[in-house]
Amino acid sequence: MPSRWEQVVVDAEDPAQLARWWGEALGYVIVNEEPGEVEIRRTPDERPGLLFVPVPEGRTGKNRLHLDLRPDDQATEVERLVGMGARPIDIGQGDVGWVVLADPEGNEFCVLSSPAPPG
Amino acid sequence: MPSRWEQVVVDAEDPAQLARWWGEALGYVIVNEEPGEVEIRRTPDERPGLLFVPVPEGRTGKNRLHLDLRPDDQATEVERLVGMGARPIDIGQGDVGWVVLADPEGNEFCVLSSPAPPG
Repeated sequence: MPSRWEQVVVDAEDPAQLARWWGEALGYVIVNEEPGEVEIRRTPDERPGLLFVPVPEGRTGKNRLHLDLRPDDQATEVERLVGMGARPIDIGQGDVGWVVLADPEGNEFCVLSSPAPPG
Repeated sequence: MPSRWEQVVVDAEDPAQLARWWGEALGYVIVNEEPGEVEIRRTPDERPGLLFVPVPEGRTGKNRLHLDLRPDDQATEVERLVGMGARPIDIGQGDVGWVVLADPEGNEFCVLSSPAPPG
Protein backbone atom coordinates (compact mmCIF):
# COMPACT_ATOMS: atom_id res chain seq x y z
CA MET A 1 0.00 0.00 0.00
CA PRO A 2 1.41 3.42 -0.89
CA SER A 3 2.29 5.94 1.76
CA ARG A 4 -0.27 8.30 3.08
CA TRP A 5 0.29 12.01 2.44
CA GLU A 6 0.85 13.09 6.02
CA GLN A 7 1.60 16.80 5.72
CA VAL A 8 3.12 19.66 3.85
CA VAL A 9 6.17 20.94 5.62
CA VAL A 10 6.64 24.69 5.40
CA ASP A 11 10.05 26.17 6.12
CA ALA A 12 9.56 29.25 8.25
CA GLU A 13 11.42 32.04 9.94
CA ASP A 14 8.87 32.01 12.78
CA PRO A 15 6.97 28.69 12.70
CA ALA A 16 4.76 29.44 15.72
CA GLN A 17 3.58 32.72 14.26
CA LEU A 18 3.17 31.47 10.70
CA ALA A 19 1.29 28.36 11.88
CA ARG A 20 -1.18 30.56 13.75
CA TRP A 21 -1.63 32.76 10.72
CA TRP A 22 -2.45 29.77 8.50
CA GLY A 23 -4.62 28.26 11.21
CA GLU A 24 -6.74 31.38 11.15
CA ALA A 25 -6.67 31.57 7.35
CA LEU A 26 -7.95 28.01 6.94
CA GLY A 27 -9.88 27.52 10.17
CA TYR A 28 -7.41 24.80 11.18
CA VAL A 29 -6.48 23.78 14.71
CA ILE A 30 -3.07 23.25 16.25
CA VAL A 31 -2.53 19.54 16.79
CA ASN A 32 1.07 19.56 17.87
CA GLU A 33 3.39 22.22 19.16
CA GLU A 34 6.96 21.72 20.18
CA PRO A 35 9.73 24.26 20.48
CA GLY A 36 10.11 25.59 16.96
CA GLU A 37 7.63 23.22 15.31
CA VAL A 38 3.88 23.59 14.98
CA GLU A 39 1.40 21.41 13.09
CA ILE A 40 -2.12 22.37 12.12
CA ARG A 41 -4.93 20.25 10.67
CA ARG A 42 -8.52 20.83 9.64
CA THR A 43 -9.60 18.48 12.42
CA PRO A 44 -7.27 16.65 14.80
CA ASP A 45 -7.30 13.42 12.79
CA GLU A 46 -7.59 14.79 9.28
CA ARG A 47 -4.59 14.72 7.01
CA PRO A 48 -2.69 16.18 5.30
CA GLY A 49 -1.87 18.87 7.79
CA LEU A 50 0.59 21.72 7.57
CA LEU A 51 3.76 21.49 9.62
CA PHE A 52 5.78 24.65 10.14
CA VAL A 53 9.44 24.18 10.94
CA PRO A 54 12.29 26.63 11.48
CA VAL A 55 15.03 27.05 8.93
CA PRO A 56 18.01 29.37 9.08
CA GLU A 57 17.81 30.48 5.48
CA GLY A 58 15.33 32.95 4.04
CA ARG A 59 13.26 32.62 0.90
CA THR A 60 14.90 32.98 -2.49
CA GLY A 61 12.58 33.53 -5.42
CA LYS A 62 9.15 32.11 -6.03
CA ASN A 63 8.24 28.89 -4.23
CA ARG A 64 8.14 25.74 -6.36
CA LEU A 65 5.08 24.47 -4.46
CA HIS A 66 2.19 26.61 -3.27
CA LEU A 67 -1.29 26.25 -1.82
CA ASP A 68 -4.53 27.03 -3.64
CA LEU A 69 -7.53 27.98 -1.54
CA ARG A 70 -11.15 27.65 -2.64
CA PRO A 71 -13.33 30.33 -1.04
CA ASP A 72 -17.07 30.63 -0.77
CA ASP A 73 -16.78 34.17 -2.02
CA GLN A 74 -13.50 35.23 -3.58
CA ALA A 75 -13.71 39.00 -3.01
CA THR A 76 -14.76 38.65 0.61
CA GLU A 77 -12.08 36.08 1.30
CA VAL A 78 -9.31 38.14 -0.31
CA GLU A 79 -10.38 41.12 1.79
CA ARG A 80 -10.32 38.99 4.94
CA LEU A 81 -6.87 37.57 4.20
CA VAL A 82 -5.41 40.95 3.28
CA GLY A 83 -6.87 42.27 6.52
CA MET A 84 -4.94 39.51 8.30
CA GLY A 85 -1.69 40.56 6.68
CA ALA A 86 -1.56 38.84 3.32
CA ARG A 87 -0.54 41.03 0.41
CA PRO A 88 -1.41 40.90 -3.26
CA ILE A 89 1.59 40.12 -5.41
CA ASP A 90 2.39 40.03 -9.09
CA ILE A 91 4.25 36.92 -10.20
CA GLY A 92 3.40 37.55 -13.83
CA GLN A 93 0.06 35.80 -13.58
CA GLY A 94 -1.64 38.29 -15.91
CA ASP A 95 -5.41 38.42 -16.14
CA VAL A 96 -6.55 35.22 -14.48
CA GLY A 97 -9.53 34.07 -12.43
CA TRP A 98 -7.55 33.63 -9.23
CA VAL A 99 -5.93 36.12 -6.91
CA VAL A 100 -2.29 35.70 -5.96
CA LEU A 101 -1.38 36.65 -2.42
CA ALA A 102 1.66 36.24 -0.21
CA ASP A 103 1.49 35.18 3.44
CA PRO A 104 3.36 37.20 6.10
CA GLU A 105 6.62 35.42 5.26
CA GLY A 106 6.19 35.96 1.53
CA ASN A 107 4.97 32.49 0.54
CA GLU A 108 2.78 32.73 -2.53
CA PHE A 109 -0.71 31.24 -2.50
CA CYS A 110 -3.80 31.62 -4.65
CA VAL A 111 -7.42 32.34 -3.82
CA LEU A 112 -9.37 30.60 -6.55
CA SER A 113 -12.65 31.73 -8.03
CA SER A 114 -15.67 30.90 -5.91
CA PRO A 115 -17.31 27.53 -6.60
CA ALA A 116 -20.53 29.06 -7.92
CA PRO A 117 -19.92 32.50 -9.44
CA PRO A 118 -22.90 34.81 -9.09
CA GLY A 119 -24.93 35.60 -12.16
CA MET B 1 -16.30 30.47 6.54
CA PRO B 2 -12.61 30.17 5.67
CA SER B 3 -11.49 28.86 2.35
CA ARG B 4 -11.01 25.19 1.75
CA TRP B 5 -7.50 23.98 0.98
CA GLU B 6 -8.10 22.88 -2.58
CA GLN B 7 -4.70 21.71 -3.73
CA VAL B 8 -0.97 22.05 -3.69
CA VAL B 9 0.30 23.41 -6.97
CA VAL B 10 3.61 21.96 -8.07
CA ASP B 11 5.66 23.79 -10.67
CA ALA B 12 7.01 21.24 -13.11
CA GLU B 13 9.14 20.86 -16.19
CA ASP B 14 6.93 18.00 -17.37
CA PRO B 15 3.61 18.15 -15.47
CA ALA B 16 2.06 15.11 -17.16
CA GLN B 17 5.00 12.91 -16.34
CA LEU B 18 5.51 14.20 -12.81
CA ALA B 19 1.78 13.91 -12.03
CA ARG B 20 1.87 10.27 -13.07
CA TRP B 21 4.92 9.65 -10.96
CA TRP B 22 3.23 11.11 -7.87
CA GLY B 23 0.01 9.33 -8.70
CA GLU B 24 1.86 6.04 -8.54
CA ALA B 25 3.80 7.08 -5.44
CA LEU B 26 0.65 7.94 -3.48
CA GLY B 27 -1.91 5.70 -5.16
CA TYR B 28 -3.75 8.80 -6.38
CA VAL B 29 -5.92 9.07 -9.47
CA ILE B 30 -5.91 11.68 -12.22
CA VAL B 31 -9.02 13.82 -11.87
CA ASN B 32 -8.28 16.46 -14.45
CA GLU B 33 -5.93 16.63 -17.37
CA GLU B 34 -5.59 19.52 -19.74
CA PRO B 35 -2.71 20.40 -22.00
CA GLY B 36 0.14 21.04 -19.62
CA GLU B 37 -1.87 20.70 -16.42
CA VAL B 38 -2.69 17.54 -14.50
CA GLU B 39 -4.42 17.15 -11.15
CA ILE B 40 -4.39 14.06 -8.95
CA ARG B 41 -6.41 13.25 -5.83
CA ARG B 42 -6.67 10.32 -3.46
CA THR B 43 -10.24 9.82 -4.61
CA PRO B 44 -12.08 11.97 -7.17
CA ASP B 45 -13.77 14.15 -4.54
CA GLU B 46 -11.11 14.21 -1.86
CA ARG B 47 -9.10 17.36 -1.34
CA PRO B 48 -6.45 18.64 -1.20
CA GLY B 49 -5.14 17.26 -4.47
CA LEU B 50 -1.87 17.89 -6.22
CA LEU B 51 -1.94 20.03 -9.35
CA PHE B 52 1.08 19.93 -11.63
CA VAL B 53 1.58 22.95 -13.88
CA PRO B 54 4.30 23.86 -16.35
CA VAL B 55 6.78 26.63 -15.61
CA PRO B 56 9.62 27.83 -17.79
CA GLU B 57 12.13 28.14 -14.98
CA GLY B 58 13.97 25.28 -13.32
CA ARG B 59 14.43 24.66 -9.63
CA THR B 60 16.90 26.77 -7.66
CA GLY B 61 17.91 25.43 -4.28
CA LYS B 62 15.85 23.53 -1.76
CA ASN B 63 12.08 23.89 -1.93
CA ARG B 64 10.47 26.00 0.80
CA LEU B 65 7.52 23.60 0.97
CA HIS B 66 7.71 19.82 0.73
CA LEU B 67 5.56 16.75 1.24
CA ASP B 68 5.95 14.23 4.05
CA LEU B 69 4.72 10.70 3.41
CA ARG B 70 3.74 8.23 6.12
CA PRO B 71 4.44 4.64 5.04
CA ASP B 72 3.28 1.35 6.46
CA ASP B 73 6.86 0.18 6.37
CA GLN B 74 9.56 2.76 5.84
CA ALA B 75 12.31 0.56 4.40
CA THR B 76 9.98 -1.17 1.95
CA GLU B 77 8.48 2.12 0.86
CA VAL B 78 11.83 3.80 0.33
CA GLU B 79 12.91 0.83 -1.77
CA ARG B 80 9.73 1.06 -3.84
CA LEU B 81 10.10 4.80 -4.41
CA VAL B 82 13.78 4.55 -5.30
CA GLY B 83 12.86 1.78 -7.71
CA MET B 84 10.42 4.23 -9.30
CA GLY B 85 13.15 6.82 -9.79
CA ALA B 86 13.36 8.74 -6.52
CA ARG B 87 16.84 9.29 -5.18
CA PRO B 88 18.16 9.69 -1.65
CA ILE B 89 19.55 13.14 -1.02
CA ASP B 90 21.46 14.88 1.70
CA ILE B 91 20.10 18.27 2.66
CA GLY B 92 22.00 18.28 5.92
CA GLN B 93 19.33 16.36 7.77
CA GLY B 94 21.86 14.38 9.79
CA ASP B 95 20.78 11.29 11.70
CA VAL B 96 17.00 11.52 11.75
CA GLY B 97 14.08 9.10 11.75
CA TRP B 98 12.91 10.02 8.27
CA VAL B 99 14.43 9.44 4.86
CA VAL B 100 14.87 12.37 2.50
CA LEU B 101 14.30 11.61 -1.17
CA ALA B 102 13.98 13.69 -4.32
CA ASP B 103 11.36 13.05 -6.99
CA PRO B 104 12.39 12.79 -10.67
CA GLU B 105 12.44 16.60 -10.98
CA GLY B 106 14.47 17.01 -7.81
CA ASN B 107 11.70 18.05 -5.42
CA GLU B 108 12.58 17.02 -1.89
CA PHE B 109 10.15 14.92 0.13
CA CYS B 110 10.40 12.81 3.26
CA VAL B 111 9.38 9.26 4.05
CA LEU B 112 8.58 9.31 7.75
CA SER B 113 9.08 6.48 10.18
CA SER B 114 6.39 3.82 10.06
CA PRO B 115 3.41 4.36 12.36
CA ALA B 116 4.13 1.30 14.46
CA PRO B 117 7.84 0.46 14.45
CA PRO B 118 8.52 -3.25 14.82
CA GLY B 119 9.77 -4.46 18.16
